[in-house]
Amino acid sequence: MVGGGQDAFIGAVHRMAAFLDGEIELVCGAFSSSESKSQTTGAALYLSPERAYASFEEMIVKEKALPEEARMDFVSIVTPNYLHAKPAMLALENGFHVLCEKPLALSYSEALTLRKMVKQSGLTFGLMHNYTGYPMVKEAKAIVKSGKIGPIRKVIAEYVQGWLAARIEESGQKQADWRTDPDKAGISCCVGDIGTHAENLAEYISGLKISELSADVSTFVKGRKLDDDASVLLRFDNGAKGVLFSSQIAVGEENELKVRIYGEKGSLEWLQSDPNSLLVKMEGEPVQIYRTGVDKSYLSKAALNATRLPGGHPEGYIESLANIYKEFARTIHGTKEGRKDEFDFPDIEDGVRGMRFIEAVIESGSKNAQWVKL
Amino acid sequence: MVGGGQDAFIGAVHRMAAFLDGEIELVCGAFSSSESKSQTTGAALYLSPERAYASFEEMIVKEKALPEEARMDFVSIVTPNYLHAKPAMLALENGFHVLCEKPLALSYSEALTLRKMVKQSGLTFGLMHNYTGYPMVKEAKAIVKSGKIGPIRKVIAEYVQGWLAARIEESGQKQADWRTDPDKAGISCCVGDIGTHAENLAEYISGLKISELSADVSTFVKGRKLDDDASVLLRFDNGAKGVLFSSQIAVGEENELKVRIYGEKGSLEWLQSDPNSLLVKMEGEPVQIYRTGVDKSYLSKAALNATRLPGGHPEGYIESLANIYKEFARTIHGTKEGRKDEFDFPDIEDGVRGMRFIEAVIESGSKNAQWVKL
Amino acid sequence: MVGGGQDAFIGAVHRMAAFLDGEIELVCGAFSSSESKSQTTGAALYLSPERAYASFEEMIVKEKALPEEARMDFVSIVTPNYLHAKPAMLALENGFHVLCEKPLALSYSEALTLRKMVKQSGLTFGLMHNYTGYPMVKEAKAIVKSGKIGPIRKVIAEYVQGWLAARIEESGQKQADWRTDPDKAGISCCVGDIGTHAENLAEYISGLKISELSADVSTFVKGRKLDDDASVLLRFDNGAKGVLFSSQIAVGEENELKVRIYGEKGSLEWLQSDPNSLLVKMEGEPVQIYRTGVDKSYLSKAALNATRLPGGHPEGYIESLANIYKEFARTIHGTKEGRKDEFDFPDIEDGVRGMRFIEAVIESGSKNAQWVKL
Amino acid sequence: MVGGGQDAFIGAVHRMAAFLDGEIELVCGAFSSSESKSQTTGAALYLSPERAYASFEEMIVKEKALPEEARMDFVSIVTPNYLHAKPAMLALENGFHVLCEKPLALSYSEALTLRKMVKQSGLTFGLMHNYTGYPMVKEAKAIVKSGKIGPIRKVIAEYVQGWLAARIEESGQKQADWRTDPDKAGISCCVGDIGTHAENLAEYISGLKISELSADVSTFVKGRKLDDDASVLLRFDNGAKGVLFSSQIAVGEENELKVRIYGEKGSLEWLQSDPNSLLVKMEGEPVQIYRTGVDKSYLSKAALNATRLPGGHPEGYIESLANIYKEFARTIHGTKEGRKDEFDFPDIEDGVRGMRFIEAVIESGSKNAQWVKL
Repeated sequence: MVGGGQDAFIGAVHRMAAFLDGEIELVCGAFSSSESKSQTTGAALYLSPERAYASFEEMIVKEKALPEEARMDFVSIVTPNYLHAKPAMLALENGFHVLCEKPLALSYSEALTLRKMVKQSGLTFGLMHNYTGYPMVKEAKAIVKSGKIGPIRKVIAEYVQGWLAARIEESGQKQADWRTDPDKAGISCCVGDIGTHAENLAEYISGLKISELSADVSTFVKGRKLDDDASVLLRFDNGAKGVLFSSQIAVGEENELKVRIYGEKGSLEWLQSDPNSLLVKMEGEPVQIYRTGVDKSYLSKAALNATRLPGGHPEGYIESLANIYKEFARTIHGTKEGRKDEFDFPDIEDGVRGMRFIEAVIESGSKNAQWVKL
Repeated sequence: MVGGGQDAFIGAVHRMAAFLDGEIELVCGAFSSSESKSQTTGAALYLSPERAYASFEEMIVKEKALPEEARMDFVSIVTPNYLHAKPAMLALENGFHVLCEKPLALSYSEALTLRKMVKQSGLTFGLMHNYTGYPMVKEAKAIVKSGKIGPIRKVIAEYVQGWLAARIEESGQKQADWRTDPDKAGISCCVGDIGTHAENLAEYISGLKISELSADVSTFVKGRKLDDDASVLLRFDNGAKGVLFSSQIAVGEENELKVRIYGEKGSLEWLQSDPNSLLVKMEGEPVQIYRTGVDKSYLSKAALNATRLPGGHPEGYIESLANIYKEFARTIHGTKEGRKDEFDFPDIEDGVRGMRFIEAVIESGSKNAQWVKL
Repeated sequence: MVGGGQDAFIGAVHRMAAFLDGEIELVCGAFSSSESKSQTTGAALYLSPERAYASFEEMIVKEKALPEEARMDFVSIVTPNYLHAKPAMLALENGFHVLCEKPLALSYSEALTLRKMVKQSGLTFGLMHNYTGYPMVKEAKAIVKSGKIGPIRKVIAEYVQGWLAARIEESGQKQADWRTDPDKAGISCCVGDIGTHAENLAEYISGLKISELSADVSTFVKGRKLDDDASVLLRFDNGAKGVLFSSQIAVGEENELKVRIYGEKGSLEWLQSDPNSLLVKMEGEPVQIYRTGVDKSYLSKAALNATRLPGGHPEGYIESLANIYKEFARTIHGTKEGRKDEFDFPDIEDGVRGMRFIEAVIESGSKNAQWVKL
Repeated sequence: MVGGGQDAFIGAVHRMAAFLDGEIELVCGAFSSSESKSQTTGAALYLSPERAYASFEEMIVKEKALPEEARMDFVSIVTPNYLHAKPAMLALENGFHVLCEKPLALSYSEALTLRKMVKQSGLTFGLMHNYTGYPMVKEAKAIVKSGKIGPIRKVIAEYVQGWLAARIEESGQKQADWRTDPDKAGISCCVGDIGTHAENLAEYISGLKISELSADVSTFVKGRKLDDDASVLLRFDNGAKGVLFSSQIAVGEENELKVRIYGEKGSLEWLQSDPNSLLVKMEGEPVQIYRTGVDKSYLSKAALNATRLPGGHPEGYIESLANIYKEFARTIHGTKEGRKDEFDFPDIEDGVRGMRFIEAVIESGSKNAQWVKL
């Protein structure tokens, strides 16, 4: 693991998710750029001191030097944005599979470079767009694909939070600090951090691609260097239209990610804060509430595979990441054993796509919401 | 009453709303352009045959000829859009107050003419933007005005329906027929019918004015002559940003009108299908559910005045219209008696504003979402 | 109208409900035992002074003396419990139909006497168990009757309020005052006021009859003379079991009336504070949300008849009473015209049943929850 | 681990919960009474073959024979009810701490014996009443304890499921099979399996003890040997009253565990299918929605300690078990290190209490709902 020191948020979540199914073990880490912090974190995680490394470079080099059966199988990257591409590249160069946090890189061009390396390496590359790991998101995708709701006309994707409504980055809140710092986060805060989740989800479920967009991008908090709010008009490759909005200044909102997909015959609605329900609305019929659960015979195979418990036993955020880890790990296993199963997790293409989206939104925003093609 | 024949939707609703408080009586009507239909409707409503008129012109002229204590007090106009301004003007010219359905007119310029006439007449003019009649909408406005949630940064207003997802106007559905016909509806179907409600509500609650907008306007149903979907980026006069989207092709949605207002210190959320609740979200505190009810001591006077029942006795759509009627009627009474109470109902200014909004959205839509100032 | 003076709650609601459809007119009233109050109320309701009577006796006698086309058609009784049976009897004796608030009487034996009089008179008698007027309640009844959910096994009916959690009857709250006074309310406060609504609804929807019950009845507020809480085990005539609980000390609850019906193949859930939705849960299928609306083709005729608006236009409490008034008035009309239509409103049998239920619960409560047969 | 073979439900959940925080490792197991099944499960869990034992007896004996640093720290028992007490006793006799599924034993007397052994051993004993592990349940307990809602008057606890509505035990459904078999489940199916969760939760949150109860116990499915439904009137030691109902024949319900607590000044409502919300209803104030999240400064320390993620990142069922494991494991650590921290997990007393409750309900049910003292 690269990153995930003791006061990080997402590193701990990754570890819980990876451990959940008992199939992945943490064997080493470069948890911090401070050697002593990395040591402390490693110790707290019951690692032997020699595998709590001072840097990702050291980790990759030393692990590679270990006998094959002892060395790590893959690298999990849970650092701020500016430290995604570098360790990913080094890992790939040294023959390690990579699971990386999103967004993929600091820029679209860096993303393209990384994609080239992934393709050349033949290694497995996963991107932690975890919301696609939820069973009801997979169900939504399966329903669209089945044709049940007909060709899609309209997509509404929203992701609103309130935690950056004040300038908390000034008071040492670590999560806020790097996300609002162009050197660490790249060209965008709000769009890069959450808007891209909404984009990824909209394209994942709908099976469509955004072809152009027009964005009004704002920084509401004075003195902040990056955006904290964006509203985007979308046009898709099949002629569908869309609205996407993301905000970090929506006071009082926790983490409201919601997607609505309207087809000619029916529509779908999914809300991350009630993740085990999917509303299916067919013309002229009562709304149906599809529910997560291994006992739900009406669900698609994709949804059932991503489900651990019977209905009524809420599965949550950690499980969504665990599903990405599971699919990723099984792909590595499958490849090892020469199998070519079709596993379902976001990969380098999602990463490249996300970077293109972020740049397009910021570009449109800087040009008074002119249309930008993707 | 002008319009509201037997297979009309909104005419019957107006009558129920007007009757609800026992303060308004239906005394005459020109319910249809067909004399026999007008007679049939009049008879069903227990009117004497001579006051079920064949046309609004006849109604206004003949009522004016009656002794003052016998003639109607005001005209209620519940016809399709193209028959709003004409009867309104004739009524004003003959000294009758007017309560008119929205949108006010067929065009912004017609609206301006009407406004001039209203001002010159000194008569009372009400516009049936009924959603502002809901107690929790009034509460939301009062909260914003109090400063509780701080200066507003972001507004999200949505109004989605699915009933026009197929070309039902071809099969004789009367409501669909006139709304999709440019001669009867004007330049817009979706924006004029429902988008303008979202606009009115957003400005009513926020106290802000939209200063410019950029709109992507669509007609998804083939062969339809007017828009059935629109997504709009908003900028407000105080620097706030917004998103407004309205759709009539959102299959499976009933009548989902929702407004979210984000201030610097808190936010508000109201949804028409759960009209007796208002979510109040203050930074760092649990979300609060404000509820309609004459027994709710924390509510503003404006909300309490618009409420008839104790909490837990759901009030609905008809009551929202009844509140407009009540405020309108009390204004007329008050004026008669020389009082100048401050009643709260949408008026000619809302109507002019709405027409400007509709034209701006359609103009922006026709120019590939260029910004248009209001 | 008997009762319904200016600070009464339910009288005003009855008037709004009766006026709503424009088919019922208020022609006279004995609104209060104080002549001057009755006059004031009458004047506020635009009645001529001679038809605002000083007592129900005067009203009935004098109205009878009027020519048939001028006199009132029926008497609406909206007084506290102790003034239900007397005016009802006098009205029946003088040939007037009666619509009466629940509970029917002060005791089961009084209820039986009243039933005998109704039968002998041949007149129409309605009882305002308004919750059966909601469209989705009628839909629930229709679904059960259709056999869709199979034979019923379990019924859960609850009605919880918090408004009597403190001894507000001491501070002059008029609604609390008479409800907690044995002379005016009879032998029960909580069970008579709301428990009986839950009982009526459970039997109405399920089509079953309670055969015996065991009740734990409490008075939590010190000094109060009547019950303010009751929990009841139910057994039905088909072998089904049930739980019914009602409370007026459930602080923070508004008016939460909820019924769940579990059959062998499916189940139903309805909640009065979200009255336009009915949850239908069939074994192995996603939950379906049935919704009020004249445009819902899947609804039963009974539900559609009780609906005024398309889906998404919330109908509420007043409409539920209006539906009782409408069915009651149409029955009178039908009888006049010699028709024998089947209208659907609670009648004298519901009233007798309710009184038996109240007495059985109080009896069981006084015997430490012994089983009492109905 | 004792039990938890490959087609068991709860065993896998326990493993996920135990692994979640990376502090507990599975080192051995007697996963099945079939040696080969135990081996297969062990292999799938990456255990070495010699630590996948053929029986719990073998496991306990052989583990004890290992050097202290190699042997297991505690035994987790996830078997059907009839195999709870025996392995627990053997583990205690051999010096191992125990975490056991509920209900504790097959009978109250067996439970008492076990309690004696726990006390004599000085070892740590945990019981998997997992619902007390949810942060919002802990918050509810903290609020009650703080006095905020005043002395408690009424408790409503319900747990309804529909999965046993048909006789699925006949068709080889393993979960249904043992739960409806008196030899394996004991004297109760529904009350033992889920009713006792409702009881535990009600007492945990309220801090009260049930002093007596009256129960109507049913077996709706023909041929079934144990109860599948029970409705219970409760009386608490402080004079509060209550209703508890549990059902496994409530078709269409998943796993609906809900608790409402009414105090003199306020009330609380928690629903397991929306576990991250707690409704707090104070007299005269808007309802407040307390929410899980490490960023919620208004939460109690108990709730925050049981929370892993910021608000809006749903935590679910597995986390609730993980919290029990975490508190249990920390107690063992603490004891080892001589610390006497106060950790919060259900223990032997909850187990004894639960068995007493089950027996009392079944006894009352067999005596036509006579009151039985606990």
